Amino acid sequence: MSVGTVYGVGLGPGDPELMSVRADRLVRSARHVAFFRKAGRSGRSRKIVDGMLPADAVEFPMEYPVTTEIPLDDPAYNEALSSFYEEVSSHLATLAGRGEDVVVLCEGDPFFYGSFMHLYTRLKPRVPVQVVPAITGMSAAWTASGQPITWGDDVLSVLTGTMAEDALVPLMEAADALVVMKVGRNLPKVRRALERAGKLDRAWLVECASMAEERAVPLTEAGDRTVPYFSIVMVHGQGRRP
Amino acid sequence: MSVGTVYGVGLGPGDPELMSVRADRLVRSARHVAFFRKAGRSGRSRKIVDGMLPADAVEFPMEYPVTTEIPLDDPAYNEALSSFYEEVSSHLATLAGRGEDVVVLCEGDPFFYGSFMHLYTRLKPRVPVQVVPAITGMSAAWTASGQPITWGDDVLSVLTGTMAEDALVPLMEAADALVVMKVGRNLPKVRRALERAGKLDRAWLVECASMAEERAVPLTEAGDRTVPYFSIVMVHGQGRRP
Repeated sequence: MSVGTVYGVGLGPGDPELMSVRADRLVRSARHVAFFRKAGRSGRSRKIVDGMLPADAVEFPMEYPVTTEIPLDDPAYNEALSSFYEEVSSHLATLAGRGEDVVVLCEGDPFFYGSFMHLYTRLKPRVPVQVVPAITGMSAAWTASGQPITWGDDVLSVLTGTMAEDALVPLMEAADALVVMKVGRNLPKVRRALERAGKLDRAWLVECASMAEERAVPLTEAGDRTVPYFSIVMVHGQGRRP
Repeated sequence: MSVGTVYGVGLGPGDPELMSVRADRLVRSARHVAFFRKAGRSGRSRKIVDGMLPADAVEFPMEYPVTTEIPLDDPAYNEALSSFYEEVSSHLATLAGRGEDVVVLCEGDPFFYGSFMHLYTRLKPRVPVQVVPAITGMSAAWTASGQPITWGDDVLSVLTGTMAEDALVPLMEAADALVVMKVGRNLPKVRRALERAGKLDRAWLVECASMAEERAVPLTEAGDRTVPYFSIVMVHGQGRRP
């Protein structure tokens, strides 16, 4: 009996038409489908493929044991997540060992701040793993903003809203173009850091890029709303353009 | 008579299966197809869609008037390119004005260091333009390297090999993860900058990501070969991972 393959399939930013042809094919022919979700939620990646899975596909929801209940820097957080990743990886490896292919649904690009990476490093030594790259949320976001992100020799820095304000400022100053991921409730801090870096006036906020709820506005016009975790803040480069 | 739309269609890194479902559909139903190429070449983006275009599609190759014959900082370079972009934009706008949709083939993601951006800014005030984001060459490159590029709060900086060595070094030092685009004949300079930044040992060189000729090796094992312009050098982040 041959061994199966675990596919880490990037689904892209949310619009099913922005999935790659390969991802579309793998999803539509999947026998086993695994995906992360918060307990009690349907799962963002699972929602993207709604209506695409074969009727007899076996679904394996991988429910995070914690999300924000324990602070990130508490060792208990790492322990809980680590044993969770071990456990679900073992299940996927067992399926592959039985000759089954497994499609793991991944939002965005699997190797760019993705949860699949934690399974990948655990599965790689045990079973065949293939990764299908995808359109990142940030590509969809700068497309939604209606402006190119980098021209000529522009330097692009990708930062996370979870970083400390004092760490954000010099990096914001040094780059020509900026993308801030994981904004969510960090938006007020990101806004302060941009102001200190002198770039607030040029910043854009993009929510739900490529989805029906897509919204792209200059950050100074965004108000003080609470925005989704996956919202992206960006400053477009202004480099060489003939 | 209604006005047509110019579609800037990102084709992704090169593998036709990594085109989005939307790009695949637009390409396969195109009536007018435009693409950049060097004089005397078939064009990289045109090659990606070989065998996919309708038999009666009208092709409009947009041939660069200069590539490396004039230095980048010579005003003549800018003038030559600027009037070229004007001219082809006018042609595309005329087609759209006649009610024709036009698909412009774009390697990678159109808004990420793409040539289409120069048409976009000229066409936007004149006719409807839609941009289809795509998988970037760098996503295909880190996938080819078999290692995730960013974990946790890793900062990713995207640099260009065309930058001066002294400008590259501090940016290479400051970032957790690095991608260097436009490597080609700048490889020796990029290597020296990485050495000065203390990151040469962790760097990878990826050529022709996602294509038949794909090659991913640690940079220290790459030797002194001449590599294609679109080769990518990267240093993977080592951030938080439970």
